[in-house]
Amino acid sequence: MQPIKAIIFDVFGTLVNWRGSIAREAQHLLQPLGLRVDWLAFADAWRAQYQPAMEQVRSGQLAFCKLDALHSRNLALVLADLGITLDAATFKQLNLAWHRLDAWPDAAPGLHALRSHYRLAPCSNGNISLMVDLARRNGFAWDAILGAELARDYKPKPEVYLNAASAFDLEPSQTLMVAAHSSDLAAACAVGLRTAFIARPDEYGPNTGELQPGLAVDYAAASVLELARQLGVTSRQQEHSQQ
Amino acid sequence: MQPIKAIIFDVFGTLVNWRGSIAREAQHLLQPLGLRVDWLAFADAWRAQYQPAMEQVRSGQLAFCKLDALHSRNLALVLADLGITLDAATFKQLNLAWHRLDAWPDAAPGLHALRSHYRLAPCSNGNISLMVDLARRNGFAWDAILGAELARDYKPKPEVYLNAASAFDLEPSQTLMVAAHSSDLAAACAVGLRTAFIARPDEYGPNTGELQPGLAVDYAAASVLELARQLGVTSRQQEHSQQ
Repeated sequence: MQPIKAIIFDVFGTLVNWRGSIAREAQHLLQPLGLRVDWLAFADAWRAQYQPAMEQVRSGQLAFCKLDALHSRNLALVLADLGITLDAATFKQLNLAWHRLDAWPDAAPGLHALRSHYRLAPCSNGNISLMVDLARRNGFAWDAILGAELARDYKPKPEVYLNAASAFDLEPSQTLMVAAHSSDLAAACAVGLRTAFIARPDEYGPNTGELQPGLAVDYAAASVLELARQLGVTSRQQEHSQQ
Repeated sequence: MQPIKAIIFDVFGTLVNWRGSIAREAQHLLQPLGLRVDWLAFADAWRAQYQPAMEQVRSGQLAFCKLDALHSRNLALVLADLGITLDAATFKQLNLAWHRLDAWPDAAPGLHALRSHYRLAPCSNGNISLMVDLARRNGFAWDAILGAELARDYKPKPEVYLNAASAFDLEPSQTLMVAAHSSDLAAACAVGLRTAFIARPDEYGPNTGELQPGLAVDYAAASVLELARQLGVTSRQQEHSQQ
């Protein structure tokens, strides 16, 4: 077995709490306009359009475009369903709520610990500018921004994982994919990457997320800090003091 | 005039001293094999193949490939000219000398100062892994690795500059291109980017580099730290204490 040289991460759900952050951002922008909405349901409705929009790109129906553009199209659908009309500036500001997501508390210290031993990058469907804004907001220190915009296709297409390993000049087996979603890890595993599952039980609300991976993985942990300990980067004591 | 939001950098020559570093790496690897070569001339000969190789990609004769692959092809030419044969492992190690270049002394502190106010990325013809290795070696903190591998073409093709601005969701006029070479700045300027010239008089040996830009630029400085002062990020005192 070749040693792991780089670790690549799913971001939405795995490192950041998109649901709570989108609900907060939507409330912050729309409540002052007199709008009354179930903000968590709003976040869920927007997210529900995520896979269908990407599927149009994956299937070749739609040319590759940044996730920001798909989010914009999806937001228009969700607002229309709710009978809400926004001015262009507010719409744009709301669409960029995905650039203002907050990390799970263990994410930044876990990445910081891992970075001394491994090359790190997001392998997300989010575009580069979105990843840059999340990194600045949450203190993620990446070596590079890999993922959909570089590969010009969306996960779980195999090219996205292979392109990320190749950008680091690595074999898939030298690259560890980290995600809270078994489907993401299954796609990475199918093209030879190593896999690590992080449990995010509250991703879609309390006790909604996967507690255990639905496939055999190389690592399974409850946090990025626990993964760092499993990889021998930090001790159990450090793990607990940083949590 | 729109405010500058991001600064993108040429790397070879502008931030790192490729000539001295390649000469040192070649000597370190080849002298123990009993080879006697003018090491600076070796670096110059290898670099002389750089533009012709990229031109094959720019012109469409050759499909895009990473600069590492072009460097490998060029190295084979240079070694053949010198009548040198290397085993595969030494050849590969020598080819990766471009991942082990040392920065000019002002580069890392200058980038560090600029990063608090601007998004920063390399816009180099070097591939992502090469940029990652140079960043780790020299303490460059980038927001993203932009440039040739993302654009899948080589500077000075306009797409490379436009792709870098677009990756940050910026207009060209919100993006400042920094280089020690007027040709690079002229190409960036032609597609609407702002321009900053850094003088690197010793790039090809003492007093060989451009002292002044050969075009009208927005900024001209003797170091990245001086550019940071011109942009109002650091004081003259900070500039001198960090040099």
